[in-house]
Amino acid sequence: MIQIGILGYGNLGKGTEIAVAQAPDMELAAVFTRRNPDSVKILTPNVPVVNVSDMENWKDKIDVLIICGGSATDLPVQTPQYAKLFNVIDSFDTHAKIPEHFANVDAAAKETNHIGMISVGWDPGLFSLNRVYANAILPDGKDYTFWGKGVSQGHSDAVRRIKGVKNAKQYTIPIEEALEAVRSGKNPELSTRDKHLRECFVVLEDGADAQQVEKEIKEMPNYFADYNTIVHFIDEEEFMQHHSGMAHGGFVFRSGRTGVNKEHQHIIEYSIKLDSNPEFTTSVLIAYARAVKRMHDEGQCGCKTVLDVPPAYLCTQSADELRAHFL
Amino acid sequence: MIQIGILGYGNLGKGTEIAVAQAPDMELAAVFTRRNPDSVKILTPNVPVVNVSDMENWKDKIDVLIICGGSATDLPVQTPQYAKLFNVIDSFDTHAKIPEHFANVDAAAKETNHIGMISVGWDPGLFSLNRVYANAILPDGKDYTFWGKGVSQGHSDAVRRIKGVKNAKQYTIPIEEALEAVRSGKNPELSTRDKHLRECFVVLEDGADAQQVEKEIKEMPNYFADYNTIVHFIDEEEFMQHHSGMAHGGFVFRSGRTGVNKEHQHIIEYSIKLDSNPEFTTSVLIAYARAVKRMHDEGQCGCKTVLDVPPAYLCTQSADELRAHFL
Repeated sequence: MIQIGILGYGNLGKGTEIAVAQAPDMELAAVFTRRNPDSVKILTPNVPVVNVSDMENWKDKIDVLIICGGSATDLPVQTPQYAKLFNVIDSFDTHAKIPEHFANVDAAAKETNHIGMISVGWDPGLFSLNRVYANAILPDGKDYTFWGKGVSQGHSDAVRRIKGVKNAKQYTIPIEEALEAVRSGKNPELSTRDKHLRECFVVLEDGADAQQVEKEIKEMPNYFADYNTIVHFIDEEEFMQHHSGMAHGGFVFRSGRTGVNKEHQHIIEYSIKLDSNPEFTTSVLIAYARAVKRMHDEGQCGCKTVLDVPPAYLCTQSADELRAHFL
Repeated sequence: MIQIGILGYGNLGKGTEIAVAQAPDMELAAVFTRRNPDSVKILTPNVPVVNVSDMENWKDKIDVLIICGGSATDLPVQTPQYAKLFNVIDSFDTHAKIPEHFANVDAAAKETNHIGMISVGWDPGLFSLNRVYANAILPDGKDYTFWGKGVSQGHSDAVRRIKGVKNAKQYTIPIEEALEAVRSGKNPELSTRDKHLRECFVVLEDGADAQQVEKEIKEMPNYFADYNTIVHFIDEEEFMQHHSGMAHGGFVFRSGRTGVNKEHQHIIEYSIKLDSNPEFTTSVLIAYARAVKRMHDEGQCGCKTVLDVPPAYLCTQSADELRAHFL
């Protein structure tokens, strides 16, 4: 049984715990937390919750540590730090900083011959895989990635920081006409505004100025100014009832040409529709944790990404079974 | 430059030639044929066409041989035979016989430390990858594969063998209601008849009995009896004008559940829409030929499939570039 450790018990930590329970070849060894362990109640019986200060004592008892922190401040520190003690895996998703994070984790993991796998999830992760496969197969073509319909945590937070806003949720919505234009092979040039719509559901503080809040949302640079944004004001009850889910999804397209005169067009489309973003993300993490163990057992070390992993390594089935039933 | 050889110059051979010409890191070294080489005119200038009897003389001049034969009788013989001389790659697509073909190619390739990669294309191939990734991530779920709309060579051949048929083309068409039921997460139980429709365009010999031909098609066991089949009789001119293309496509779905009480559903959908089935298939072969070269350079040997290949190995870009721009 692969011994799994979880660092951080938020949405991702809980999702990981659920995914481990479903995996026939894995066992949850411990949950590590920066909080007082007595204050953290987990779902799995008889598994210890341990303060991070004791992690060093666990270094021979964990095959893979799943680091469930945030990309902004947690992972840039935690992943290199714990790659010195454990094989680790994270879902670092700040695309622009991946090369820097890779270099840090690579150096740390190599010191102690561990594997540090980064940026595992769906984007980066499964969407990256699809971009890479499709580009390798259709080198002459165009890529399109759409996100949603789903909740953007970053945009929801940005709205909540506006004065007068009590609570808010922001949905990123791909624009159907843009999807159809790509799907039909028209290779459209799409601006930011053409691809996604932003829809906000906002609960105001008593006495707040709705018009002012709406204006501030719609004009917020980077987050909203380049998009068409719809703002709805709702009461707290409606918010709790209809906007507490964590659904998400998205689309990756490659439209490419082959032929002596490039006369043939091909469209590859990959899409996901998720009821629970954190549970799906952790399901990806768990499959890659299996690969981390195998790669480490083979003697590999250093920083890895989904692009380095043979697909068969993700599976509980033997290579024979996979060839017979999945190929 | 990776030196590529092509064995067999039919639709797949021609497609491979076109794909190699588009690859910046590859060069076509020779085309091998069972025919008289003088009778084979290829597109690429200054590349020799060589009879198969001379192939042994080329064993140090080819990095990867792309075997472009048929799965019924060519590949079971050719792939093991030439894996003793070259790194080889084929598109063997008789799913039920993959384990046997694997064993034969594995034994042959290991004799001389070559790599023999089999069953590369889109199904088996890209569809297999998607089944494996999606099953690893959503272990509790249901798979659906649909083919089309596209030409089935095997079914077209079967119709052409009927007495009175001069020419025929058969299209496999996924049934829209079934696709929608899967896409919406209903997890339907689908019979063969529920999933695909078969549509035939038939040119009759003079004096043939149309009613009799239609009856023979619709009642043909394995090929048509389990499907709803539509038969159109058309003249030769219409046939040539509208039914000489080689378009194809298909869909792979995984519908799975996560959550403490399996309360969350997730749908993964992968689809392709191809103007030219052989050119797309050979584009996949060429990307995997690049991986064969890399794996051989690392010292690997034996039979491999797409499930054994790290995605980064398919690309001309460096690992750094891939992480910076595709992850």
